[in-house]
Amino acid sequence: MAPLRIALHQGPGGVPRSTDDSLAALADAAHRAAASGARLLLTAELYLTGYALGDALPEHAEPADGPGARAIAAIAAEHGLAIAYGYPERDGERIFNSVQLIDSDGTRLANYRKAHLFGEYENAHFTPGDEPVVQAELDGVRIGMLICYDVEFPEAVRAHALAGTELLLVPTALMRPYEIVAQTLVPARAWESQLYIAYANRTGPEGDFHFAGLSCLAAPDGTARARAGTGPDLVVGDADPRLLTASRAENTYLGDRRPELYRSLATAPAD
Amino acid sequence: MAPLRIALHQGPGGVPRSTDDSLAALADAAHRAAASGARLLLTAELYLTGYALGDALPEHAEPADGPGARAIAAIAAEHGLAIAYGYPERDGERIFNSVQLIDSDGTRLANYRKAHLFGEYENAHFTPGDEPVVQAELDGVRIGMLICYDVEFPEAVRAHALAGTELLLVPTALMRPYEIVAQTLVPARAWESQLYIAYANRTGPEGDFHFAGLSCLAAPDGTARARAGTGPDLVVGDADPRLLTASRAENTYLGDRRPELYRSLATAPAD
Repeated sequence: MAPLRIALHQGPGGVPRSTDDSLAALADAAHRAAASGARLLLTAELYLTGYALGDALPEHAEPADGPGARAIAAIAAEHGLAIAYGYPERDGERIFNSVQLIDSDGTRLANYRKAHLFGEYENAHFTPGDEPVVQAELDGVRIGMLICYDVEFPEAVRAHALAGTELLLVPTALMRPYEIVAQTLVPARAWESQLYIAYANRTGPEGDFHFAGLSCLAAPDGTARARAGTGPDLVVGDADPRLLTASRAENTYLGDRRPELYRSLATAPAD
Repeated sequence: MAPLRIALHQGPGGVPRSTDDSLAALADAAHRAAASGARLLLTAELYLTGYALGDALPEHAEPADGPGARAIAAIAAEHGLAIAYGYPERDGERIFNSVQLIDSDGTRLANYRKAHLFGEYENAHFTPGDEPVVQAELDGVRIGMLICYDVEFPEAVRAHALAGTELLLVPTALMRPYEIVAQTLVPARAWESQLYIAYANRTGPEGDFHFAGLSCLAAPDGTARARAGTGPDLVVGDADPRLLTASRAENTYLGDRRPELYRSLATAPAD
């Protein structure tokens, strides 16, 4: 099976003036990604609207089949590549921090709602998701999705590996000074759970936040096959099913687990 | 509470000619560690006998209260510091790959049997342990113990953090080319589970194995507070309960977990 080439769209930075600005930047990134041979383009967390929307967040949220989804489906179809993007999702009165994967023909393949919300801002504005593993098939590769803080929990990534995820897409909004997550934790996750992780970050300041960039594609051998700088960037790397198979045969973590010893991890803490 | 100073004894390298040689090297390390103000000395995996014993392993194994334990208790008492050491433990017909913690007065505080055995050699010669969390109190610090491959499983370290472990002692026999474990995975574990990890490795060749050194003390802020080279070495670092408390208040991983989403981790795989 051929490697799946992924482009990580880091930027343009800041809260966009409008969704139209985000879509224009996405169309430009899709054009460049397709020219690089990418079959999948990944954006950062809350790409469509920006992260630091404050109390204006609810008015920017839209359903999974809303106008942003339709516009991105058109971009995917025009450039002939799949797109996974972060956005605030409205479902009735609830707002989720979500990522949606749209196929290269414009079909909506899967939608994931962030389960581990980070800090006061997110907890004030979003409802946490309750479905730990959301997957889709893309060009024969089993894709999974998490968002930002989710990936910092080894349990969340392990659940994906146990469910067969081969490539984990992680839009993120990683802030300074937490560069350790992009530099150390994400490669460690890819190694310990034997899968690829595509981690696409925001960049630049937004209100009190300053995003760290450093988007990467981490491979199951623990290397970063692509690494962005700290400013706006577009980097490309390959998720290779043959490398994954070989790495899992050599590094037998998934088979050497002792699940009967891990019961405390799935138990609610005592009050 | 005062920091607990730990010395990591990496060496002398190779399979010792006899247990007496290991004990002599340990006494020398204990002397130097005590002179550096250490209150705890940690050795590598199977320190007492060497790692690559092959089929001679059973005759070198001894009970937890055997002659090696008594000799190490005497060294601990002479130099006034606690010692945690790796050894092959005999219990009837079974042999475990164990670490034992002996207090500075010679009292045996706790004994842990490796639960995740690595590779053909270990699986052929050892019985895996079945107790995931073994702890002891030392100078007001909650100590836990794992061995080598155990620490590569995030579940094993998480179980300790959930049980209150503040300082995890990990004798290891990390081989080349797996330096990623010492350099990336161990600091990631300390960060994601918010505890200190003291990781003491073997060094040099033994039969088909070549051990990587790079022992370290990883702190909950993700830094390596001490790091050995690749040859025989003795490095010292502090586990600071105040830094741990401050780090856990800022990095709220343990409280932000969603255990109800992690059930698949504790379930035996379907055949």
